[in-house]
Amino acid sequence: MGATELIITDRWPKNLVENEIPFLFIYDQVLKKSLEPVIKKFPRGSVALPVKAGETLKSIKNYSIIVSKIQAASTALGLNKPAIYACGGGSVGDFAGFVASTFRRGLPLCHIPSTWLSAIDSAHGGKNGLNLNGTKNQIGTFYSADKTLIVKELLFQQPKERAVEGLPELLKVLLCTNVKITERLLSRRFESGLLWDFLPTAIEEKLKVVKRDPLETLGYRRILNFGHTLGHVFEASVPLPHGIAVYFGMEFAFRWARHNQILDQALQRKLQASPLITSFGEKLKHIKYKAVLKKTAPSVSQALAQDKKGAGANKLWFIFLKKIAEVEQIKLSLDEVVTELHRQLNADAPGVLLP
Amino acid sequence: MGATELIITDRWPKNLVENEIPFLFIYDQVLKKSLEPVIKKFPRGSVALPVKAGETLKSIKNYSIIVSKIQAASTALGLNKPAIYACGGGSVGDFAGFVASTFRRGLPLCHIPSTWLSAIDSAHGGKNGLNLNGTKNQIGTFYSADKTLIVKELLFQQPKERAVEGLPELLKVLLCTNVKITERLLSRRFESGLLWDFLPTAIEEKLKVVKRDPLETLGYRRILNFGHTLGHVFEASVPLPHGIAVYFGMEFAFRWARHNQILDQALQRKLQASPLITSFGEKLKHIKYKAVLKKTAPSVSQALAQDKKGAGANKLWFIFLKKIAEVEQIKLSLDEVVTELHRQLNADAPGVLLP
Repeated sequence: MGATELIITDRWPKNLVENEIPFLFIYDQVLKKSLEPVIKKFPRGSVALPVKAGETLKSIKNYSIIVSKIQAASTALGLNKPAIYACGGGSVGDFAGFVASTFRRGLPLCHIPSTWLSAIDSAHGGKNGLNLNGTKNQIGTFYSADKTLIVKELLFQQPKERAVEGLPELLKVLLCTNVKITERLLSRRFESGLLWDFLPTAIEEKLKVVKRDPLETLGYRRILNFGHTLGHVFEASVPLPHGIAVYFGMEFAFRWARHNQILDQALQRKLQASPLITSFGEKLKHIKYKAVLKKTAPSVSQALAQDKKGAGANKLWFIFLKKIAEVEQIKLSLDEVVTELHRQLNADAPGVLLP
Repeated sequence: MGATELIITDRWPKNLVENEIPFLFIYDQVLKKSLEPVIKKFPRGSVALPVKAGETLKSIKNYSIIVSKIQAASTALGLNKPAIYACGGGSVGDFAGFVASTFRRGLPLCHIPSTWLSAIDSAHGGKNGLNLNGTKNQIGTFYSADKTLIVKELLFQQPKERAVEGLPELLKVLLCTNVKITERLLSRRFESGLLWDFLPTAIEEKLKVVKRDPLETLGYRRILNFGHTLGHVFEASVPLPHGIAVYFGMEFAFRWARHNQILDQALQRKLQASPLITSFGEKLKHIKYKAVLKKTAPSVSQALAQDKKGAGANKLWFIFLKKIAEVEQIKLSLDEVVTELHRQLNADAPGVLLP
């Protein structure tokens, strides 16, 4: 995978491309109105392809439809490999990334994330994906974007509530990698300006992990899966938005680490006393941790078995955080995870990230 | 792209995999009978998936069907990333290679080519592909096999006539890269044993080219397209089998190079006097060069425009061989190619590879 140029900017750049070369713009159709002035300035011949965002977008059927459109547009433009610009959240980025990586064995690609979650996490690191028979990202490649463009005025067009979904991935990557910045983050109160302030460091830290293990073959990249093993289950079973589900997944991992006595006590105290965690907890007070566990319990075993981060038959790698930037991966059986879920359901200890 | 282990062997190895780990075997269904003893020895749990070879296999629809089967098999086996073994000719390799490169972001892959063409050419170098709306390989990735296994007893099960389709790609790669071996090849008479003898060098030379330009971004890999610009057109328009079409495509390039006075005269004389070219010409005497041109003329312009090796609007890179291992790439307009086709149709000079 090649290196991706990262551009973080307050406003839309005057021109997305140099030399007026036309390109294909795949974008979330809900952004149509706000993107109108941007699209109007595209080089002549460029083609804007609106899509309906969400997990249903990521199907082979929709893939088949869009590659035919791209084939026709390429022929009309006389371009062999037109560039793809993808503007939207995670589902649009996953979908357009897979299209770009597979049409004519790879088109130039630029991600322009429109949600906090995608700006913080999914637009970086080269993963893309389609879903198959109800399971997420069963199809996909590792394919670096040539460019990722983060536009502040685009991100701040989101409803303020969406920031709640962005914080957990930001917290996750910093917790796993960077002591100093995490301590600074924990001392702040939660608001969307916070996400913008910490975005560059979070991206940088994620890319450092990706660079060490770009194809996820060495195990190291797995640390980014912190909070995700149960997170994916909560996301599908409760259901919860991805970011919220990951926050609850991190809570699960923290409680388990504490039970196993591998969680640093100073970290636990720091988290429980943190202005960030306290103010963020306020946003989630309508979702009770034990209610999430309870709702998940009947299907957890099957859901874990389908999760693709398996480590052989009925095994998975579970990620524990012991201290800030000190991660431990342990290979466990699915049964051990299920047992822990039931233990937590019946335990009375106070939470770490949640009450 | 990683390095591929190349194994050339007279007989099927006792075990395809170590440690009895089950795998998925995608194979050309016409080989069913001859593969029975091989399949019988697979590790318990392995799944054999027969497919109907040919360009119609390489559709998004068939892709969708096979990935669902692979998903079900993986779940049943409790394996996250089962290995794919692909046994067949070019279409099976292209199809299975794309499946392996995209299911769960990449499965281990082993190619076992069953035709001369695939053993010499398409199984090496990491290209795979699906067709889209009648155009070949519009979808695909670059994805190295972990292993390529060339089994003599499998290749010699083919009808002898198939060797005719294998020689042109063998000749092409050696002509473009290796003086000494090409001279040795040209001094031999054509027969299928010849293909086996020169196979290792041809593969080695192709892989050297691929290594210098694995993703075809530097232009160097394009030399492997010698004979293919018109070859693809002949293949679709006449139609002709791929290998034969490439041979006629090389003839087109040689005649054009001679007309442009960039073809070394000693090479022309050597080819015309070569036992290989003379004996191979015997096999093709039922197909007249000018009849191929004539049949192609009405559609050549449109067919060239659709060929994905474009070099910008209405341009293409045309590959000329001046001397053995001395290739020149020239950017030309489609019109120049069409004009040359009509010139050759009306010219009276003797051929180079063909009468």
